[in-house]
Amino acid sequence: MTTSPRWLRTAPGRTPRIEYGADYNPEQWPRDVWDDDVRAMRTAGVTIVSLAIFSWGRLEPAEGEYDFGWLDEVMDLLHAGGIAVDLATATASPPPWLTAKHPEILPVDHEGRTIWPGSRQHWRPTSPAFREHALRLVRQMAGRYGDHPALAAWHVSNELGCHNAYDYSDDAAAAFRVWLRRRYGELAALNAAWGTAFWSQHYSDWSQILPPRRAATHPNPTQQLDFTRFSSDALKDYLCAERDVLRELTPDVPVTTNFMIMGRLRPLDYADWAAEVDFVANDHYVQRTSRPFDELSFSANLTGNVAGGRPWFLMEHSTSAVNWQPINVPKKPGELERDSLTHVAHGADAVCFFQWRQSRAGAEKYHSAMVPHAGEDSAVFRRVTELGETLRRLAPVAGAGRTPARAAVLVDWDSAWAAELDSHPTNRLRYQQEALDWYSAFLDLGVRADVVPVRTGLSRYDLVVAPILYVVPEALRRRLEAYVRGGGHLVTTYFSGNVDEHDHLWPGAHPGALRDLLGIRIEEFAPLPDGDQVVLDNGSVGTLWTDMMEVADAGVEVLARYADGSPAVTRKAYTAGSAAYVSTRLGPDGLAPLLGDLLRRAGVESELPPGLRGRVELVVRGDFRFYVNRTDEPVDLTGVPGEALHGSAERLEPRGVGVLRGPA
Amino acid sequence: MTTSPRWLRTAPGRTPRIEYGADYNPEQWPRDVWDDDVRAMRTAGVTIVSLAIFSWGRLEPAEGEYDFGWLDEVMDLLHAGGIAVDLATATASPPPWLTAKHPEILPVDHEGRTIWPGSRQHWRPTSPAFREHALRLVRQMAGRYGDHPALAAWHVSNELGCHNAYDYSDDAAAAFRVWLRRRYGELAALNAAWGTAFWSQHYSDWSQILPPRRAATHPNPTQQLDFTRFSSDALKDYLCAERDVLRELTPDVPVTTNFMIMGRLRPLDYADWAAEVDFVANDHYVQRTSRPFDELSFSANLTGNVAGGRPWFLMEHSTSAVNWQPINVPKKPGELERDSLTHVAHGADAVCFFQWRQSRAGAEKYHSAMVPHAGEDSAVFRRVTELGETLRRLAPVAGAGRTPARAAVLVDWDSAWAAELDSHPTNRLRYQQEALDWYSAFLDLGVRADVVPVRTGLSRYDLVVAPILYVVPEALRRRLEAYVRGGGHLVTTYFSGNVDEHDHLWPGAHPGALRDLLGIRIEEFAPLPDGDQVVLDNGSVGTLWTDMMEVADAGVEVLARYADGSPAVTRKAYTAGSAAYVSTRLGPDGLAPLLGDLLRRAGVESELPPGLRGRVELVVRGDFRFYVNRTDEPVDLTGVPGEALHGSAERLEPRGVGVLRGPA
Amino acid sequence: MTTSPRWLRTAPGRTPRIEYGADYNPEQWPRDVWDDDVRAMRTAGVTIVSLAIFSWGRLEPAEGEYDFGWLDEVMDLLHAGGIAVDLATATASPPPWLTAKHPEILPVDHEGRTIWPGSRQHWRPTSPAFREHALRLVRQMAGRYGDHPALAAWHVSNELGCHNAYDYSDDAAAAFRVWLRRRYGELAALNAAWGTAFWSQHYSDWSQILPPRRAATHPNPTQQLDFTRFSSDALKDYLCAERDVLRELTPDVPVTTNFMIMGRLRPLDYADWAAEVDFVANDHYVQRTSRPFDELSFSANLTGNVAGGRPWFLMEHSTSAVNWQPINVPKKPGELERDSLTHVAHGADAVCFFQWRQSRAGAEKYHSAMVPHAGEDSAVFRRVTELGETLRRLAPVAGAGRTPARAAVLVDWDSAWAAELDSHPTNRLRYQQEALDWYSAFLDLGVRADVVPVRTGLSRYDLVVAPILYVVPEALRRRLEAYVRGGGHLVTTYFSGNVDEHDHLWPGAHPGALRDLLGIRIEEFAPLPDGDQVVLDNGSVGTLWTDMMEVADAGVEVLARYADGSPAVTRKAYTAGSAAYVSTRLGPDGLAPLLGDLLRRAGVESELPPGLRGRVELVVRGDFRFYVNRTDEPVDLTGVPGEALHGSAERLEPRGVGVLRGPA
Repeated sequence: MTTSPRWLRTAPGRTPRIEYGADYNPEQWPRDVWDDDVRAMRTAGVTIVSLAIFSWGRLEPAEGEYDFGWLDEVMDLLHAGGIAVDLATATASPPPWLTAKHPEILPVDHEGRTIWPGSRQHWRPTSPAFREHALRLVRQMAGRYGDHPALAAWHVSNELGCHNAYDYSDDAAAAFRVWLRRRYGELAALNAAWGTAFWSQHYSDWSQILPPRRAATHPNPTQQLDFTRFSSDALKDYLCAERDVLRELTPDVPVTTNFMIMGRLRPLDYADWAAEVDFVANDHYVQRTSRPFDELSFSANLTGNVAGGRPWFLMEHSTSAVNWQPINVPKKPGELERDSLTHVAHGADAVCFFQWRQSRAGAEKYHSAMVPHAGEDSAVFRRVTELGETLRRLAPVAGAGRTPARAAVLVDWDSAWAAELDSHPTNRLRYQQEALDWYSAFLDLGVRADVVPVRTGLSRYDLVVAPILYVVPEALRRRLEAYVRGGGHLVTTYFSGNVDEHDHLWPGAHPGALRDLLGIRIEEFAPLPDGDQVVLDNGSVGTLWTDMMEVADAGVEVLARYADGSPAVTRKAYTAGSAAYVSTRLGPDGLAPLLGDLLRRAGVESELPPGLRGRVELVVRGDFRFYVNRTDEPVDLTGVPGEALHGSAERLEPRGVGVLRGPA
Repeated sequence: MTTSPRWLRTAPGRTPRIEYGADYNPEQWPRDVWDDDVRAMRTAGVTIVSLAIFSWGRLEPAEGEYDFGWLDEVMDLLHAGGIAVDLATATASPPPWLTAKHPEILPVDHEGRTIWPGSRQHWRPTSPAFREHALRLVRQMAGRYGDHPALAAWHVSNELGCHNAYDYSDDAAAAFRVWLRRRYGELAALNAAWGTAFWSQHYSDWSQILPPRRAATHPNPTQQLDFTRFSSDALKDYLCAERDVLRELTPDVPVTTNFMIMGRLRPLDYADWAAEVDFVANDHYVQRTSRPFDELSFSANLTGNVAGGRPWFLMEHSTSAVNWQPINVPKKPGELERDSLTHVAHGADAVCFFQWRQSRAGAEKYHSAMVPHAGEDSAVFRRVTELGETLRRLAPVAGAGRTPARAAVLVDWDSAWAAELDSHPTNRLRYQQEALDWYSAFLDLGVRADVVPVRTGLSRYDLVVAPILYVVPEALRRRLEAYVRGGGHLVTTYFSGNVDEHDHLWPGAHPGALRDLLGIRIEEFAPLPDGDQVVLDNGSVGTLWTDMMEVADAGVEVLARYADGSPAVTRKAYTAGSAAYVSTRLGPDGLAPLLGDLLRRAGVESELPPGLRGRVELVVRGDFRFYVNRTDEPVDLTGVPGEALHGSAERLEPRGVGVLRGPA
Repeated sequence: MTTSPRWLRTAPGRTPRIEYGADYNPEQWPRDVWDDDVRAMRTAGVTIVSLAIFSWGRLEPAEGEYDFGWLDEVMDLLHAGGIAVDLATATASPPPWLTAKHPEILPVDHEGRTIWPGSRQHWRPTSPAFREHALRLVRQMAGRYGDHPALAAWHVSNELGCHNAYDYSDDAAAAFRVWLRRRYGELAALNAAWGTAFWSQHYSDWSQILPPRRAATHPNPTQQLDFTRFSSDALKDYLCAERDVLRELTPDVPVTTNFMIMGRLRPLDYADWAAEVDFVANDHYVQRTSRPFDELSFSANLTGNVAGGRPWFLMEHSTSAVNWQPINVPKKPGELERDSLTHVAHGADAVCFFQWRQSRAGAEKYHSAMVPHAGEDSAVFRRVTELGETLRRLAPVAGAGRTPARAAVLVDWDSAWAAELDSHPTNRLRYQQEALDWYSAFLDLGVRADVVPVRTGLSRYDLVVAPILYVVPEALRRRLEAYVRGGGHLVTTYFSGNVDEHDHLWPGAHPGALRDLLGIRIEEFAPLPDGDQVVLDNGSVGTLWTDMMEVADAGVEVLARYADGSPAVTRKAYTAGSAAYVSTRLGPDGLAPLLGDLLRRAGVESELPPGLRGRVELVVRGDFRFYVNRTDEPVDLTGVPGEALHGSAERLEPRGVGVLRGPA
């Protein structure tokens, strides 16, 4: 990554701190509320707000007519209150006049249906008309506010791709062709890569190529995979277009946009995007899963590594319930702080919410905020104010680098996209769930692990888990081999190593690219029907997948077998390193003992006292050690070294977090 | 309501009676069947039929060419047989020549898909082309049959909105804009009401406004709510257009159309529509729910109150199975009579079916009828004939007003529409189910309750239940306050009182408009995940919803608490009245004891002997008391006063109905 | 059927054999693989391959420009290797240049959505543009390869209708009108047949008629049924168009196309299509059902009878897992052979697979093949080679006619289509499942039964089961009556005999056309809700359906009754024959004892020793008796007459097949 080491533009001499704030939408409120807002922000400890995210309609009420007066006033008010501004370019949602004039801006979905206005983000990333109007606004914003003393950073658009990641319009088709020309050069190369000899799909002219729109049955898989890559790039390209205007006009103001690393891997390859922003920002919302806290930690961990270990900005999370899940449950006491500080532990130097004041109208009025409907005399606002105090106390942490772990979980967008395509052995496979399961096993064992993009250098890690590493181009195959031969311990799973970058199978038995490295040979995949399970001879239970596998190398040890005696888990030992393979889905409970064994052999041990392992997540930022109570019970910290910067050094409350300073 | 007190136009001096009949579709049968029809109608006791409902294609086989001869003959035949006619305007379904010539008549759904011909009701209420052709036919019908002696009433179209309630076409967009201009006057008012400062939705010209078509995510809630209101009004407007033609040409013939009050609240605000017809007609079909009889009684009760207590016309129900549910089960013995007489009990002075003779072809050939496929020698026709005799015996009831109860359940279309919008705390909330649960609790307690539209005067009721009264504009807030301060006992539930008529939250803690009246304060809503439940300290079990509530007034008594001691059910006592709040879904079994307690405090008692409560529904029309056996067991009526007009005064058969005359 | 008795064109004097092979797609592989292919084919015993199925894009890379060189080479290579070719016309999937130039070729689905290119078979059967280009290619193929010595047969297109069976485009509308004119002659006849008096659907001009596109509610049932018939005919018409070109240019080369008789009855009436090909070919894939083997046997059996008892060609099945089910499980040892030989038992004289060599790219790369990814050193290829040897051993069977059974199960496409239309008593009815249940009962009893199209002559059968024979035109009614009066034993079920060919109910009580023949009278259908069941007095359990039935004839015996004493199963005895009726779904376990009783009365007995009944399927081709082990346990064959042509005469392996020669 080549990002420049930039953070917020702040007043000279300002001491580092953990920033605190929210999206602020003053245009939804009468003028007299604004003063009250600034007063209450100071009460809560707010240091920064994101402004003007959905203000296009208000700032440019008709084409080319601008109304900046109200925003000038808000900027001044905030500055007078000592509150910095992460100022949006205001392009997130086009106003009605624009889509009425240019309906060709509206996206078209996979079924050919137009995405109409009425909500937000109803624009094609590839639309020339949209880009023209949006960039003109960006230019206005930069010109007007570039020198404003409150301006700390630019916030490009908002959650790019949240709803418009895939567009199948004619604009998209045209841009897809340009992207493909750049990727393949010659049409023959595209025909080869897409395997168009199959099903008579040979292209004789670039103009014949289309997005994978609704088809009679399974569309070409490489066409699908390339369209996914293109779609990520199309939004990245738009991000760069706004950024370039901003850099031209305000070269000293850092630029960011809020990623959405959460839940399941989104359509956008943020590991690739990170190089385009001055610092990484992320939005994260807890969702109802079997292990919601582990997912939060996983996402924060990955965000920190996408950010290259540098400080990042938690741009949005929630003080309590959201409004967009089927059923939206409020946060329990302690959850707000635990969620926030887990992000800080993984490198966030800013903790922000959507939004400052809960709306009275619109589609997000039931989304919690820093100031709820009930006002300042409320449990939520009291917790918000306490959190502000806590973050002030944690100021010394700001800027501290994350201390890498000795183990890592690899995340690969290409594999996540390709492994879940249709026409596969099973459509039940879930890439991110397998990755999360391994991460949960690390947490259960009390062993720190970094969640890192596949392009990360592996040599720093003693053990690397690469779940469902389905796409293995030659270069990656070599990297993995070099890692193992260099003493690294690689662990991978079912449906890994099968295909190259074009989703073509490597020749011969599975798992093609990794067959020799792992010393195994798979003739057929044997996915399991729903409800079926297999019991291994070590007592663990597999679901989802099995392989018809045999050992093909004398150096392979079978760590677990299926009931018929065939190998289920294998490990090939090298001079120093090793390469292990797990052929079924074991889930966190089945993975934990297996991973424990593999870590022991790799010489990696927990840094936690035995009594804390599994109950507490440990994260280290330089001198600071974060102890996060994963449970709803209190935890005794006796024996843990260091002095408390936050919380007690003796005890963690249920869902509590302690931050200790000093040597381990 | 300002409806004129009109009923059927009948021959002078005819004695009042309960009308009996069906939809009659002679055009599906050869001429020789018609004579047989009239003969069999007389056997069955039929007094009236609805005619020509789907006859457009037959009456106007090509544009402007009319073929009335066959209908003339049917009208004459019926009149000769002493059977009156509720004559349709025949516009319910446009013929193929019309939609072939004017495809712009076809509705467009939310996804942009055209609704093609091939079934029925494939027309836009707002289509100028449709209206032109339809009204021309109405004019023809009125001119030709206005003076026919068989004509007793006009039947406008059929089940307006059954399939075409929502249309997202460009015609609809244009009409929506007209409706909005009328509602808001200034665009600024619309922008304020819709909260368009949110998500950059500010309109700078009326022409930019669209129906809430498929969007990227949650559309503007007020736009959705207004579009629902508009859609109800658009169909009402069409109803009025036909009615106005009829009133112009045949001022002495009453006009009706068949509403669809059943199952769940339909898209149409019938409380609002009722003022536009000369008498209310309704269609009702029993559906497979947990308590189908209770729903039937609820709907009949509501229909009677929508009709303002005046006689109404049961235009359609079924003699046995229908054909449009996934699985269509025939009626058990007794159900046909019980269903019919429950409608009569609640004020129906006409009992009609779809349809007279079961079709041999078409999409409704498996829908039961008065004359089934098996013919007159069949159980169904024998029951039909018995019912005809019963209705003759009940002639004295005709015209008797419904006797109001001392308690009521409020029904509010605005709340039903708005409470179930998306982007809410839970998408599991069902307005009508909560209302039905309360009604079932009344039935279980043996206490009569009226189901009344929210605009009904409340002062006549000692106790009013307002379930999920989500939308509370200022005027309603005042009415409710006046009701309680005037000695009324108000009971309301979770998700009530939160928003005004624009779906904007009332300021401050929930439940905004009702906070002070109830003396409570809610900081956060806490909906329950599927499968979760809470046990209250009174032993009842809540699902779906809970509130994080506190008592905010010394006059509030906590009637039940959650496990953590926080209040779940409260009651604030006033000098004479009270205001109670139930914060979770208790279901009929949990509501019955609670409601029993609230009724006792309000001084409302059951009018039934203890042994009949819950087993029998009592309905009163003046001197006539209907005892409806809700169970499949016989019920002993001993001790009940009055003489039997129908059934035994001593005993109700399983599913049986007794009608007794005389003082209670 | 009038098919000429043609089979493959082969070298003179070649001995009859069971052909063996696969689809072969050399264009997906480099040239050097082709030699290896031919070598390995000889190893495996391959005698024939299907070639060029998806080669249009390769053969005609731009309009009118042909590249046949590679195919010439492949044809020569195969011929040199002694391998015959079933040569495709290569029209199955149009190349991108064609759909780019003529987007009006693309089908339109029921919702109005275009089916875009990107997969395969994205063409309208009724498209003039498609037909012009496709037939031009057919002409080229015939001209170039008609005399090639490798050419054994023409393979028209591929799996016609697999994805494009229903097309709702304007081309389809135009062709539908032509088809309707041919069927009805006068518009009045269509109006009568479609019952357009219902819901104002009267047509005054042919041009008003449309396919049953997305409508407001249930479309006209006869319109739906006719559109289904038309859709089958439209594809048949296209098949004939290709065939006619081939017959014109290469009159001595037989023409076939691969049907898809499997799983559930497809949209195409293959009993009608069979007359148009020189020999029948079929594709069959095992699917995950409760009794997958029974379905395979049922489909093979039906295919044999669709082929009129003459040899047929198993064009595709799989060596192991497929890729298009949600979860694709590999075949267990023995399944490959059992599947293949069961088809041979039912008359297949060719056993082929999709495909020869498993693809490295494209949407079917995870579909198994004769040469899997793992190569020749694999379990799959070893089994494939063993099967090749087995088929060589079975050469004497080739050409042997299937020996008819004494019982039959009737299959009627019209009833299958019409019985599952919407707006019926229940939407849970599944035509083919009921037919399969009866077939399973025959297998469980060890009694052979033929699965035959309804047009088959019945007189050869002692007992005929006609499950859900819903559509009974007058001619069929007479045939069934003649069959019974001639001594035949007819068994039919719920929802039979109700309607004529226009889906109009026969007059009077149900089951209209069969009421008198069965001697029963049904007033109402009483389908059962999900989860409900009824217990008959013989202990068997009914689901899905019941009838409100009474006996209407003294000659009727009630074989089983419902709990209320009403008849559930009846049998009317005639002088020699009988007519029985089963009014509920009993499933295989409930049907077996009942069917056993009915067979006993009809004098039909199992040809298997008692110990084998139910465990083994017996199929007879002349002198050859196939014993197929339906179970996963070994079966003792001791006492079975004949000498083993394949397998042991004493014992069947689990899932094993024995072929014995000699008198029974």
